[in-house]
Amino acid sequence: MGKNPAAANRGIPSKEDFKEWYPFIVEAAELVDKRYPIKGMDVWRPYGWKTMRLIDDLTHREMERTDHEEVNFPLLIPEDLLDKENKLVSLLKLAREKGVDPSELRMDDEVGGFAKEVYWIRHAGETELDKPMFLRPTSETAMYTMFPLWIRSHADLPLKTYQMVNTFRYETKQTRSFIRVREIHFFEAHTAHIDEEDATRQINQDLEIVENLMKDLKLPVLISKRPVWDTFPGAWYTIAIDVIMPDGRTLQVASVHHYRDQWARAFDVTYEDTSGEQQYVHQTTYGMSERLLGAIVASHGDDRGLIMPPAVAPIQVIVIPILSKDGSEEVMSKAEEIVSELKSSGIRTKLDSRAIRPGQKYYDWEIKGVPLRIEIGPRDLANNAVMCAKRTGEKTSQSLDGLVDAVQNQLETIGDEMMSNSLEHFNSHLQNLPSFTVDGNNLQFSEPIQTNKVYEFAFAGNDAEAEMIEKSTGLSFLGDSTKLYDKEQPCIITGTLTTRRIYLAKAY
Amino acid sequence: MGKNPAAANRGIPSKEDFKEWYPFIVEAAELVDKRYPIKGMDVWRPYGWKTMRLIDDLTHREMERTDHEEVNFPLLIPEDLLDKENKLVSLLKLAREKGVDPSELRMDDEVGGFAKEVYWIRHAGETELDKPMFLRPTSETAMYTMFPLWIRSHADLPLKTYQMVNTFRYETKQTRSFIRVREIHFFEAHTAHIDEEDATRQINQDLEIVENLMKDLKLPVLISKRPVWDTFPGAWYTIAIDVIMPDGRTLQVASVHHYRDQWARAFDVTYEDTSGEQQYVHQTTYGMSERLLGAIVASHGDDRGLIMPPAVAPIQVIVIPILSKDGSEEVMSKAEEIVSELKSSGIRTKLDSRAIRPGQKYYDWEIKGVPLRIEIGPRDLANNAVMCAKRTGEKTSQSLDGLVDAVQNQLETIGDEMMSNSLEHFNSHLQNLPSFTVDGNNLQFSEPIQTNKVYEFAFAGNDAEAEMIEKSTGLSFLGDSTKLYDKEQPCIITGTLTTRRIYLAKAY
Repeated sequence: MGKNPAAANRGIPSKEDFKEWYPFIVEAAELVDKRYPIKGMDVWRPYGWKTMRLIDDLTHREMERTDHEEVNFPLLIPEDLLDKENKLVSLLKLAREKGVDPSELRMDDEVGGFAKEVYWIRHAGETELDKPMFLRPTSETAMYTMFPLWIRSHADLPLKTYQMVNTFRYETKQTRSFIRVREIHFFEAHTAHIDEEDATRQINQDLEIVENLMKDLKLPVLISKRPVWDTFPGAWYTIAIDVIMPDGRTLQVASVHHYRDQWARAFDVTYEDTSGEQQYVHQTTYGMSERLLGAIVASHGDDRGLIMPPAVAPIQVIVIPILSKDGSEEVMSKAEEIVSELKSSGIRTKLDSRAIRPGQKYYDWEIKGVPLRIEIGPRDLANNAVMCAKRTGEKTSQSLDGLVDAVQNQLETIGDEMMSNSLEHFNSHLQNLPSFTVDGNNLQFSEPIQTNKVYEFAFAGNDAEAEMIEKSTGLSFLGDSTKLYDKEQPCIITGTLTTRRIYLAKAY
Repeated sequence: MGKNPAAANRGIPSKEDFKEWYPFIVEAAELVDKRYPIKGMDVWRPYGWKTMRLIDDLTHREMERTDHEEVNFPLLIPEDLLDKENKLVSLLKLAREKGVDPSELRMDDEVGGFAKEVYWIRHAGETELDKPMFLRPTSETAMYTMFPLWIRSHADLPLKTYQMVNTFRYETKQTRSFIRVREIHFFEAHTAHIDEEDATRQINQDLEIVENLMKDLKLPVLISKRPVWDTFPGAWYTIAIDVIMPDGRTLQVASVHHYRDQWARAFDVTYEDTSGEQQYVHQTTYGMSERLLGAIVASHGDDRGLIMPPAVAPIQVIVIPILSKDGSEEVMSKAEEIVSELKSSGIRTKLDSRAIRPGQKYYDWEIKGVPLRIEIGPRDLANNAVMCAKRTGEKTSQSLDGLVDAVQNQLETIGDEMMSNSLEHFNSHLQNLPSFTVDGNNLQFSEPIQTNKVYEFAFAGNDAEAEMIEKSTGLSFLGDSTKLYDKEQPCIITGTLTTRRIYLAKAY
């Protein structure tokens, strides 16, 4: 455990020891309890769940703004639907191998290996079920069984649905709160469109939604089209959104998928077009999870605990009365007045009136990441003022006149400071790939490759050349940035001019 | 299918044929889709899910008001915890048989038959799990495993938590949307207290919450303490809340349970009291589900479709422009203006601008139960007015001046009318038990017992006498009403004076 003078007396590991700090802080801040007797399934405590629900509220807001409708599908999926999915995945794999369009092939009987990750239900009570079922890892198969019943003609399109549900994956890798869990708090949007172009417009809208959310969560992100070998099974292409974590590894926090008509062919989702012909729909999906909260914890926290973005902080302002022998009653009643004034302006505010030392209270709310602390004592009262301490640093006296506006401004400032801190981390971790010489199938770099950095470079090579870069660096292709180079650059391997910008990193 | 002149052209069965009407209407109003390939697991469609979420919002509001905190527990529960529960249930059964206090007995190894109703997970991917798990039917065992970690001293009490989650029961009886389903949208509050009295205060608070909710949902209810043989396993006593359905059968829509320290003994949930002694906590639970929506559908609907209580109507006001050859543009722009005015006053309003006949639109929104319809045509516009049609009947012209207030009043009136209609049904179905003579072990009634009524009567007899009443009527004891008789009455069997009022009915 590293040194952490700021919080030595609370036992908080230094954030530089990210591997120690993260699991410690998610429990110390009472986001989750990991002592539930199943590995990879945490109990959400009130503070953590409230934060997650506030994140979800932002998502609901965006879904409503963009005319998505919320549905809720059953958790259990009959086995035969998985077979359908496996056939689709096998077919796509085959098409890629043969270099042909998937629509030129027919569904064959070959079954892929997707069954590995799901939990199976074969018994209910003492009965062995005729029809085994599994817990959804995601809802394509469940939903696309119903879509043909809902979509008749072009007038039913676009169909834009979403749900927030629990999904399950039997993770064999090491689990980690919010980041790799076996019961996932999942958001999934599923849309159907008349053609590929309209589905592409949806992908662009999804990326705009991501941008809005990340602005509220104060998270700069890498957006890239995953390489073919890392595309979601069943997708034509996948665009993933990654955060750079404190240890320089990237964490995928969202992904959007263009399915073209591939699933529609497997599940027979068609519509009647304006000329009376049956056509396959084109589909997209967009997924997120509690990894958003994991990214918030990891990106913004410091040696004293969490720092919550004001937009999703369950408590935005904590009010702490500083009581002394004289005038305690006045201080207390003023504190209560302030709390009720802030609350009625829609600011999530709490009064801490516990009978413990103020210093103890500061620690408690710092660890939970409350953005703004207001202290009020007899001296402040005499000056018609309070002290405002931002969780991002700096303490100022603030007049009681116009306090609501002042608090709103301070919350805004805190958000700005969080974004600028995250950006600083982001920019310092995103670097150009060092120069190299080629030695057979290996690249010899002019300076050592660091596993805690994300590298970017121009690339126009083939899969074998990509693999050579991965092997030489020990890092992985995140994919093609959606942010192309402004001007053409020579590909680092072939020299061909290109605007393609690749991200290379070690991913979670 | 019965006659239903009002809706003959839509194929809606008459509500008198409740068995036909109910399953038809839940799909026709697009609350759920029952075509999902697993029996008893419906897909929630946007309109149904939105309504359920608005019901949930009322519950969240009440939980916040009463200082409950929301948590979220894993769905999966390890098998060994079920064994613990089964032992508790067996012990309570034994204590009842022996007529002793459960605390005088020790947990033995006898296992009850609770395992029958749960879905089992014994495989994940291709692995057979060391430790089988099941899908929660309810969360006592999951939660009470964690409570000992959260409760140390009396200062941690009361602990008041709740969650809204999916739970699962392997129903072998016939399933019915919202009423008997295999995946349940479940609300459960779990509290822990220093003693029996404080737990009892919680029970009273729960009943106050129920009262508030039922006021918003416009549902009169029967509240009764279930007979011992119908008490929730593990509970000291159960108070259930029942609605009288259109067919006179009762539907339990909520229940609250006083556990005393029975679960605490089984799960070792203790606290240190003020004198430093370890004491068992006393616990309560409070459960509800989508049956609330089932009761809304059944109680308020009519031959034309649903009628949604304004508090939970996803669309409270539908605005329908009546377009003619002249002045359509003006009508449309006025309609849009009205919608935005109502929306900004917090009224959930929608404009139906589809290019179909107004009559068709009326039908569509009637079937979905939108409380208030506003029609606006050129003639109304000329009079600076609109037509307001209440879903409960009656159509009036309303000036555009002060429209928001007028709409709010009308929604209030609709709610009042819904409550008065429900009360009328409720009162006409709640009757005194007819007089009878005793013939051996059978009661001969002076008039036939109807299975579509709920009977009430004074009772101070024993279990055998209760059983005689049940057998002679073919109905079941709902339990002891919390509304005692004002004056003592003679027990209908023994003649003993009592204020106990029993409800007798056929339950869902």
